Amino acid sequence: MKHETALQIAVKTENKPGPKSPATWLGKWENQIGSEMTLAVTGTDVTGSYTSASSSGGGPVTGALKGNVSGDLISFLVLWPGGSMTAWTGQLVDDQTAPRIKTLWNLVTDVPDPEEPKRLWTSTFTGADEFTR
Amino acid sequence: MKHETALQIAVKTENKPGPKSPATWLGKWENQIGSEMTLAVTGTDVTGSYTSASSSGGGPVTGALKGNVSGDLISFLVLWPGGSMTAWTGQLVDDQTAPRIKTLWNLVTDVPDPEEPKRLWTSTFTGADEFTR
Amino acid sequence: MKHETALQIAVKTENKPGPKSPATWLGKWENQIGSEMTLAVTGTDVTGSYTSASSSGGGPVTGALKGNVSGDLISFLVLWPGGSMTAWTGQLVDDQTAPRIKTLWNLVTDVPDPEEPKRLWTSTFTGADEFTR
Amino acid sequence: MKHETALQIAVKTENKPGPKSPATWLGKWENQIGSEMTLAVTGTDVTGSYTSASSSGGGPVTGALKGNVSGDLISFLVLWPGGSMTAWTGQLVDDQTAPRIKTLWNLVTDVPDPEEPKRLWTSTFTGADEFTR
Repeated sequence: MKHETALQIAVKTENKPGPKSPATWLGKWENQIGSEMTLAVTGTDVTGSYTSASSSGGGPVTGALKGNVSGDLISFLVLWPGGSMTAWTGQLVDDQTAPRIKTLWNLVTDVPDPEEPKRLWTSTFTGADEFTR
Repeated sequence: MKHETALQIAVKTENKPGPKSPATWLGKWENQIGSEMTLAVTGTDVTGSYTSASSSGGGPVTGALKGNVSGDLISFLVLWPGGSMTAWTGQLVDDQTAPRIKTLWNLVTDVPDPEEPKRLWTSTFTGADEFTR
Repeated sequence: MKHETALQIAVKTENKPGPKSPATWLGKWENQIGSEMTLAVTGTDVTGSYTSASSSGGGPVTGALKGNVSGDLISFLVLWPGGSMTAWTGQLVDDQTAPRIKTLWNLVTDVPDPEEPKRLWTSTFTGADEFTR
Repeated sequence: MKHETALQIAVKTENKPGPKSPATWLGKWENQIGSEMTLAVTGTDVTGSYTSASSSGGGPVTGALKGNVSGDLISFLVLWPGGSMTAWTGQLVDDQTAPRIKTLWNLVTDVPDPEEPKRLWTSTFTGADEFTR
């Protein structure tokens, strides 16, 4: 749907939660594959770094992370060394017991101009990742 | 797929493009519905604001925008007043003639803790948007 | 979010439309790249074939198509010769004037078992396509 | 990216797996929330039914399921009573030990024509689901 439509629904249905303590998000998180991210929080701003446990191509890759947090929600971006980018959106669940961040992500890959006629859109990969402490 | 796998493919296939001039991205962009974003670029950092042309709920909504650019690629986040968040990933196409930014987006909606048992994951909406000058 | 949650919202908000005539969907549709699909409709069942205008790898690829239609909505699957699969979901817009089908799609790629440890999830690509008559 | 581009990559990289026995997919699968699907397989065709454990709106909802399987891959559609539709794409993992089907899904919601001007695209929700035996 149009983003505007989704946003209308979102604005209508939201329940502004009390802000989580920054400690909710702070520190190191790891996904199922051993990729790690370290988060720092100032207000709703998130900064940090993300190291993907990529095994081929000579080992792990690290990129700077920036994003937003609000209540149980988080969204963050990583810019990879070669220019590819990933955007995650997700939610913290079971934060009182075994906090996990459940996310969906899109990764866009750089495509040079000369190849655009036949690869007009950049390659976009998608998937789901779950992070635990 | 695992994000790690996608990233490996991305790193292997990328062709590091010469950096676009910041002017490539600078300024005002509008989508098909009249939502507007204004971008400022410093290196690979993007900042700006995004105004959604949402008609219900009392008119447009504006949120701060931050993101990354690299070559033809862009990813950016907006944090909405009520705490919902959108992440866009996309690519600039036809930049020599009629520049457009083709994007996919995910919007996550805040869900209060008490409702998590039956709404464990936050509402995530998805869609595609295209921006022109 | 959980599919269940989305479904609850969907069921609550839906307005059962009068069924479109099968003619609404019938026949040949083409996307921006010249890929073609031909649809036949029986009740809510869609069958047909889809030919992707893939230029590399020796020209176009064709796969059988099956899906559902209901009101303005369509979802359909194509199984590609090598075993990859695409799922589209979308909606018919401007059906009285210049009918277009706006879709989002996910494409999953086959990954052999021995590679699963490092490529545990299959490669999933995502994107948006628009079809016109 | 364009679906054509993704498909080219998919066709190039695929490794045609030996067909799984229909028994691989056959029978009842359940996700984390208690939704159940029952699959029958003939060649690459899947049929069955899917019952969502939706608790509001008067309990569970059931819809007919159809799809494709090939090797470790599956894609399937469900048409819900009110006309909404979900498309899943996914892969079977750990099939020798603890088989799970990891999926991504999109759910489109019916939007009546009169509301299209302000809700031009149908509501599309997205998420990830995992099914076990």
